[in-house]
Amino acid sequence: MSKQKTLEPPILEANGAVVPCCPPLTAAELSAEDAERMAAMFKALADPVRLRLFSKVASHPGGEACVCDIADVGVSQPTVSHHLKKLREAGLLTSERRGTWVYYAVAPAVVAAMSAMLDLRST
Amino acid sequence: MSKQKTLEPPILEANGAVVPCCPPLTAAELSAEDAERMAAMFKALADPVRLRLFSKVASHPGGEACVCDIADVGVSQPTVSHHLKKLREAGLLTSERRGTWVYYAVAPAVVAAMSAMLDLRST
Repeated sequence: MSKQKTLEPPILEANGAVVPCCPPLTAAELSAEDAERMAAMFKALADPVRLRLFSKVASHPGGEACVCDIADVGVSQPTVSHHLKKLREAGLLTSERRGTWVYYAVAPAVVAAMSAMLDLRST
Repeated sequence: MSKQKTLEPPILEANGAVVPCCPPLTAAELSAEDAERMAAMFKALADPVRLRLFSKVASHPGGEACVCDIADVGVSQPTVSHHLKKLREAGLLTSERRGTWVYYAVAPAVVAAMSAMLDLRST
């Protein structure tokens, strides 16, 4: 079993405001530190099953889903839970236990940061 | 040595027009096939050194760079070439040999497709 660690989401504090890392890639080179952070985000989406689970949460009515809603991706329930945990550790999903189920929602600021970084039109 | 294969870029032909895959993740679930394609794109950016090289090409004046311009990321020149090859195979960079050097440029349609998929505001 590999040891897992929780990654910090790519958010920087500036004067008390939370601003997403990083500028569009055409605007400036990524620092080594920011590249480490952002590569971890991309790694979370670099698996087809994880990406499908992420898209199922993102497109679910109400913007959140429990495991019971999204488990039909052709892998076992423990594997689904493992992938959801990876997405949460990478900061891309948030989770909240309510009763029997854990509900997952997309972390909009983190996903917006990834999108903005790849938005090459804005520079 | 692992065997490498070239991935098709995530572009679909529709009525003769080239349109990028895929809709924003909030709009619809990804199909298994699209998830395979897009996960391969994200995997290409899931390494800190590759991401820094990609950002160096993207932010280089004129929008293209040769290995000689961008090799200062703390790894050997063969490793830089290996990473640039991976980015090219994933469809994120294009390359052109001119004289002694190979010049790399960002493939805008592919990167725009990744950005659009993560742009959750648009739905």
